[in-house]
Amino acid sequence: MASNAACIFCKIIKGEIPSLKLFESDKTLAFLDVGPLSKGHALVIPKYHGAKLLDIPDDHLGEILPVAKKIANASGATDYNILQNNGRIAHQVVDHVHFHFIPKPNETEGLGIGWPTTKPDMDALKKLSEELKAKM
Amino acid sequence: MASNAACIFCKIIKGEIPSLKLFESDKTLAFLDVGPLSKGHALVIPKYHGAKLLDIPDDHLGEILPVAKKIANASGATDYNILQNNGRIAHQVVDHVHFHFIPKPNETEGLGIGWPTTKPDMDALKKLSEELKAKM
Repeated sequence: MASNAACIFCKIIKGEIPSLKLFESDKTLAFLDVGPLSKGHALVIPKYHGAKLLDIPDDHLGEILPVAKKIANASGATDYNILQNNGRIAHQVVDHVHFHFIPKPNETEGLGIGWPTTKPDMDALKKLSEELKAKM
Repeated sequence: MASNAACIFCKIIKGEIPSLKLFESDKTLAFLDVGPLSKGHALVIPKYHGAKLLDIPDDHLGEILPVAKKIANASGATDYNILQNNGRIAHQVVDHVHFHFIPKPNETEGLGIGWPTTKPDMDALKKLSEELKAKM
């Protein structure tokens, strides 16, 4: 299993740093965020170390969402966001892939979302979809 | 497979409404968002109809992130967010679970994030983690 001795989340996985664990399996760990945006804000991480989504093998990604679902169910939240950030500009702070479960109890608590929608030309979008498909 | 005749995403799955498809399997569909926040903004959805994460069976969730990863790889984006919203207050507009892949090329394009961190009492957090674990 890929690991990084300097990574704070790898240290949590190894038990070198304490955490408020919610779930643990061979591949996945979940614990409460200690700087929560709302009550119940938790992190679900693959134990496999990698900075971004692309760095994590598929079989280590498959359990993430079912675990997030377990936490959502236990929290009783009706409104919530699942968020995973890749890169500093996209708001990633710790370079070990982590999925946030963030309850949204009201307008002020929880994740704030800005949504700068664009209206691209449909022909350009169609061309882009063909370019992406060719690379998949 | 759960489906809802009035759901716009179920109509896309059935081909009753056109879409710019990127990936399709028995359980999963991915296509470009036609109101993108940035170039390459795509949606990955389970074909199984359900409004929120809790409504989707685990075996229909397992493929979502590997497909998002394929799209991220094809896009060439280095910075990006994966986001799934549950409920109106959490910015969900279409009531069929969907995961956004949103490239973040610069400060103005892509997802805007507000992060109202709190500093809760550690004893209260520990109590919460035990309450949640007991419900999982």
